[in-house]
Amino acid sequence: MRNVSGWAAHHQGSALKPWDFTRRDLLADDVAVRVDYCGVCASDIAAIRHGTIYPLVPGHEMTGEITAVGSAVTRFKAGDKVAVGNIIDSCGTCPPCLAGRENWCRRFPTLTYGNTDPKDGLPTRGGYCSEYVLPAKFTYHLPEGLDPAGAAPLMCAGITTYAPMKRWGVGPGKTVGVVGMGGLGHIALQLAHALGAEVVQFTRTLDKVDEAHALGADDVVLSTDDQQMAAQAGRFDFILDTVGAPHSIEPYMSALAMDGTLCVVGIPESAIEVKALSLIQGAKNLAGAGSGGTAETQDMLDFCATHGITAEIEIMRPDQINEALERLARNDVRYRFVLDMSAQRP
Amino acid sequence: MRNVSGWAAHHQGSALKPWDFTRRDLLADDVAVRVDYCGVCASDIAAIRHGTIYPLVPGHEMTGEITAVGSAVTRFKAGDKVAVGNIIDSCGTCPPCLAGRENWCRRFPTLTYGNTDPKDGLPTRGGYCSEYVLPAKFTYHLPEGLDPAGAAPLMCAGITTYAPMKRWGVGPGKTVGVVGMGGLGHIALQLAHALGAEVVQFTRTLDKVDEAHALGADDVVLSTDDQQMAAQAGRFDFILDTVGAPHSIEPYMSALAMDGTLCVVGIPESAIEVKALSLIQGAKNLAGAGSGGTAETQDMLDFCATHGITAEIEIMRPDQINEALERLARNDVRYRFVLDMSAQRP
Repeated sequence: MRNVSGWAAHHQGSALKPWDFTRRDLLADDVAVRVDYCGVCASDIAAIRHGTIYPLVPGHEMTGEITAVGSAVTRFKAGDKVAVGNIIDSCGTCPPCLAGRENWCRRFPTLTYGNTDPKDGLPTRGGYCSEYVLPAKFTYHLPEGLDPAGAAPLMCAGITTYAPMKRWGVGPGKTVGVVGMGGLGHIALQLAHALGAEVVQFTRTLDKVDEAHALGADDVVLSTDDQQMAAQAGRFDFILDTVGAPHSIEPYMSALAMDGTLCVVGIPESAIEVKALSLIQGAKNLAGAGSGGTAETQDMLDFCATHGITAEIEIMRPDQINEALERLARNDVRYRFVLDMSAQRP
Repeated sequence: MRNVSGWAAHHQGSALKPWDFTRRDLLADDVAVRVDYCGVCASDIAAIRHGTIYPLVPGHEMTGEITAVGSAVTRFKAGDKVAVGNIIDSCGTCPPCLAGRENWCRRFPTLTYGNTDPKDGLPTRGGYCSEYVLPAKFTYHLPEGLDPAGAAPLMCAGITTYAPMKRWGVGPGKTVGVVGMGGLGHIALQLAHALGAEVVQFTRTLDKVDEAHALGADDVVLSTDDQQMAAQAGRFDFILDTVGAPHSIEPYMSALAMDGTLCVVGIPESAIEVKALSLIQGAKNLAGAGSGGTAETQDMLDFCATHGITAEIEIMRPDQINEALERLARNDVRYRFVLDMSAQRP
């Protein structure tokens, strides 16, 4: 077994504390990754509060370096810069897995933390730690030129917004809206712009307008302004709704053009309500998306490297993690906290 | 003006009575259609109950014969067999109209009844009558070999189910579910089968099982049987939900495969509720559709002629219209009433 030091919640909702644990010795297909940076995702907060397996080590947006490879691994060698996201294994045999879309594995993919890994029977422990061990298949080459701190959030916030944009044809000639300018939204905005679409950022926060333009928005709409919202009717081919708090989607359904798609990636606690006529009139579409498979995750990283896209981040030391979580819970971050895990190494 | 005899509700919810009215003289682009058959659609009941312009003449599923054409009409001549649906005009200049998808006209299409026609300022009166006058553009050639009585319901129930199936790629290798086996559902079932898909009929009515198989269902699932429903998980590429009564869509979201689409064409009075996770897990999709444009409506008629698809109907005399409406309101019809308007001609 390999000794790892990390940060864990020891019961539901508790503050994170330093915690030493072990990971399996490398299987033939495994790699060991020294974690340099780990993004702090809103789902980490939900997991700490509502998890089932404790101690719980959160974190699923990692960049780092390969330190060891299993006997059958040829894609990586020690010293390679890599990234790891929110899925670390899957059944490998169901149709989604065979299509490289392991995030929809029918057995359910093995999540980076808070899960039990069918391969070793151990609870999975996340990236707020010194080292991760996982199959090489779910490890990604970090392209040169991508800042490893700013790239870490791409592994969840990036792929979750990139995958639906690719699926729904975001590109030149399309008008795209991004609802919410947080961890996901501010990356979605950059991606849609780089994909060649006209991009409109919806925000409730007046003082984000300049930053939205700086990140590529062609237009910014204050979603709290009914008049501005009414003027959007029929404008959008695609809207990505990144807001996790409960909110009405009807104004965004109205903003869709014929055949338009509103895709949700945030997860409000209450059900979404939509009028049948809001779907029927204009043959509109309410879709969902989350994470991505191995094929599109590497594609996303390469795309971001080509276009110089990373998250806007605030770097924190691991011993600031509870402060980071608390500030994230009240949306006091522009736009993603990233833990510098090297700051705790001896 | 042209004298027309028809059947009208004179105020909200009232029984229909014989009523004589006038239509405009033919404009250069108009045709006059002698109405031979008119289908009775559930939306006729809603219009009678909740309309705004009375007397109200319902009916938007017509077949008949051209009796006169305007000076500029070249596509039709007297004696041509034709069909008319639920849209009789549109602005003609907005992007949906220019794309032949006039049902999503931005000005809003002119509906066959219960609307005011911007072209003559008159209330539109529907197909429960002796003659209709409309632009040739919204008049369709009824292909030879299609029974004109059974074809009438294709003009609403047929196009409303055909358009989304074409859009969402229903064809060989796809598994398709049809929810509800009424006026729309029993046509959707035949269309999906003829398009080459594996088709599963969902019904609450045990005694429709044999008829569903006869109309092309490869499988029939009782939606009231939780065990049968649970066994459908992940099965469908596309599900068409034709049910207008309020019902939970969650069991059908579960029945979708990865990337699957549930398309609603019924209009429940209450909003649809869907969990964000039901959309997100498997990247699923909740869509809407209704009616069709001029291009796909003629395409639908030609497809139905090629494959011998018509509605299963019960023919009624015009003086039985109130009985038909009453029976339809309690779902006592297999599967569509069609008024034989020739039965009242002198």
